[in-house]
Amino acid sequence: MRLIVCLTDFGWKDGYAGILKGVIWTIAPGAQVSDLTHEIPPQDILQGALALGRAVPYFPVDTIFLAVVDPGVGTGRRPIAAHIGDHFFVAPDNGLITLPLEEAMRKGQFVEVVHLDRPQYWLPVISNVFHGRDIFAPASAALANGVPLAELGSPIRDPMRLKFPQPQRIEDGWRGEIIHIDAFGNLATNLRGEHLQGRGQLEVHIGPECIRRLVKAFGEGSPGQLVTLIDSSGSLAVSAVNSSAERTLSAHIREPVEVIFAT
Amino acid sequence: MRLIVCLTDFGWKDGYAGILKGVIWTIAPGAQVSDLTHEIPPQDILQGALALGRAVPYFPVDTIFLAVVDPGVGTGRRPIAAHIGDHFFVAPDNGLITLPLEEAMRKGQFVEVVHLDRPQYWLPVISNVFHGRDIFAPASAALANGVPLAELGSPIRDPMRLKFPQPQRIEDGWRGEIIHIDAFGNLATNLRGEHLQGRGQLEVHIGPECIRRLVKAFGEGSPGQLVTLIDSSGSLAVSAVNSSAERTLSAHIREPVEVIFAT
Amino acid sequence: MRLIVCLTDFGWKDGYAGILKGVIWTIAPGAQVSDLTHEIPPQDILQGALALGRAVPYFPVDTIFLAVVDPGVGTGRRPIAAHIGDHFFVAPDNGLITLPLEEAMRKGQFVEVVHLDRPQYWLPVISNVFHGRDIFAPASAALANGVPLAELGSPIRDPMRLKFPQPQRIEDGWRGEIIHIDAFGNLATNLRGEHLQGRGQLEVHIGPECIRRLVKAFGEGSPGQLVTLIDSSGSLAVSAVNSSAERTLSAHIREPVEVIFAT
Repeated sequence: MRLIVCLTDFGWKDGYAGILKGVIWTIAPGAQVSDLTHEIPPQDILQGALALGRAVPYFPVDTIFLAVVDPGVGTGRRPIAAHIGDHFFVAPDNGLITLPLEEAMRKGQFVEVVHLDRPQYWLPVISNVFHGRDIFAPASAALANGVPLAELGSPIRDPMRLKFPQPQRIEDGWRGEIIHIDAFGNLATNLRGEHLQGRGQLEVHIGPECIRRLVKAFGEGSPGQLVTLIDSSGSLAVSAVNSSAERTLSAHIREPVEVIFAT
Repeated sequence: MRLIVCLTDFGWKDGYAGILKGVIWTIAPGAQVSDLTHEIPPQDILQGALALGRAVPYFPVDTIFLAVVDPGVGTGRRPIAAHIGDHFFVAPDNGLITLPLEEAMRKGQFVEVVHLDRPQYWLPVISNVFHGRDIFAPASAALANGVPLAELGSPIRDPMRLKFPQPQRIEDGWRGEIIHIDAFGNLATNLRGEHLQGRGQLEVHIGPECIRRLVKAFGEGSPGQLVTLIDSSGSLAVSAVNSSAERTLSAHIREPVEVIFAT
Repeated sequence: MRLIVCLTDFGWKDGYAGILKGVIWTIAPGAQVSDLTHEIPPQDILQGALALGRAVPYFPVDTIFLAVVDPGVGTGRRPIAAHIGDHFFVAPDNGLITLPLEEAMRKGQFVEVVHLDRPQYWLPVISNVFHGRDIFAPASAALANGVPLAELGSPIRDPMRLKFPQPQRIEDGWRGEIIHIDAFGNLATNLRGEHLQGRGQLEVHIGPECIRRLVKAFGEGSPGQLVTLIDSSGSLAVSAVNSSAERTLSAHIREPVEVIFAT
């Protein structure tokens, strides 16, 4: 029996996330079901895609990711399921699975995607506003039961892919932006360790601040101090030691961050 | 081994919800335990009852719902357990199980309710403020272990039932109210699809707003637009496309909503 | 297969808590993994230690607690694992396990602690900012797989212990402080039932308020009324009936609370 891991923007409070599991266990009793997060900001496909991308490499082979951030529910956007590298995905076709997809393409790994167009694998009654419950959860349960991916729908070759904001080379460094702010208030950018490699001294500019302290671990700075480091996903991040850089800097997603190499 | 599903107003932060599972697994090792929600507003029995009612139909036969929203803990209110239709419930006797109970009565389904008055099925030490841990979790674990309901307490015939606010017929339509606001800011009313059936054009009035757009799916409107639709529970709901109707309208639970039929 | 229970300050939103499980299940497929809480205030070791202490007695023998509140991650603080009384713990060596440790020492129970200094039980690549994922989760999975504690690292005899604030005897009673505020706004103090035993009438002073009502259960007071009671952990607590004492009193952690015995 395979593991199903849920990522949604449902929040916890209404029980919508719990209902997904009821549907799964009705179809696949005893399936192992777990939560990655249900607190993706509402309708924020890009944040959902990033959270999924961060997590996937740490899950066992054949894990099924049930990912539902779905502003287009009930419209023409396709429901899809995919076998990508070592994992399976069930999601709306809106770019949520972009990161594992591009990673697999880069590595030349196996990719198979189907359009979930076979109602015998859905709930008998389909609402127009909760395909997580009515289409995606049943499809993930079918996969957990061992139904082959190709049984669930017609093959497609053009799953939608998001364009993530890319850093720009500037005269004396790189210009990137904040792409994720975590619960600790750490500011992760789209600049990666690779962008800094082989460089000695550098300055990180964000708003009016210039941070010169590149540390290996939070504890190297003094409490409240702004530091930069390579975070656990390999991103250049700005943090406030034992505090929140988000609050300290009133920072927000998409805010520019520049790295200037010392001459 | 049966599935136990928890609904409470405990929140996540203090670990109270986690403790329920510790108690269950001490008594019924290996029981399958899941969360519906722990974010019912504190002491809000009506919201708890609605969340439970929305979820129950999607869970497997014989699921045990451990539902604890319990302002009367430690006073005379009875702890109860019930077998209602296809499911089991363990809860304080304060109306939390009203919706499955009334549904079963309507359908002529099996109903058996007991007063949890046998301390051999509780924890050895009982606090006056945490019966979830000391009485309800142990009782749900006993059910999961296969102890018959009738063993857990004396039969009762008068479990408490909540009166839910009912819509009123007005001259040219219906007057209802908001009964639930979800994490997306969708406003669910106590008006149902049935109230609108066979009617053509209609107007939905809420505060100073008059909404004429009845859509099938959120994506039919433009971003931010107020629309009405039949939600995934069959309620007439007011939503703001890819946004929050709660925020847009500063709406709140119990706020009146009128449907006027076009002549 | 043993049960692993997670307590962290990660929050739910970023998926960090979900990633712990992915790591565990990669190493120990099918392990039973559950959440105590992921909402310890960021870096607040004392609140983490209190939440862990409240929960441990309610979990089955041999439960493994994976506890990560870790402001010193990546610095010299040791990662440790411990067998204390009936339970196992995997945590940074910063005092998180103080309460079970002191309880076991008081009771003369078994205590064995090791420094997690054997990289063969870690993930292959170790970040400096997420040892929960890279060291602690793998170690808990090894324990779940039955690897003996002594295999995971070198024995140590000096695990760090927190000093919890202690109540002071004053002329006519006790002076304590608020040590925990729960999701209901109940204010738990470091005064225990034992401090009041055998005393008749008492007054509880907090800020400008003097509360004379010591109740057995919330429901004994009228809605909104401030009462004191012995809570489910045995602490003297201040509560507002069906409301929040935190909000009513604008109370905060570490605020003084005095108990005065009537003469």
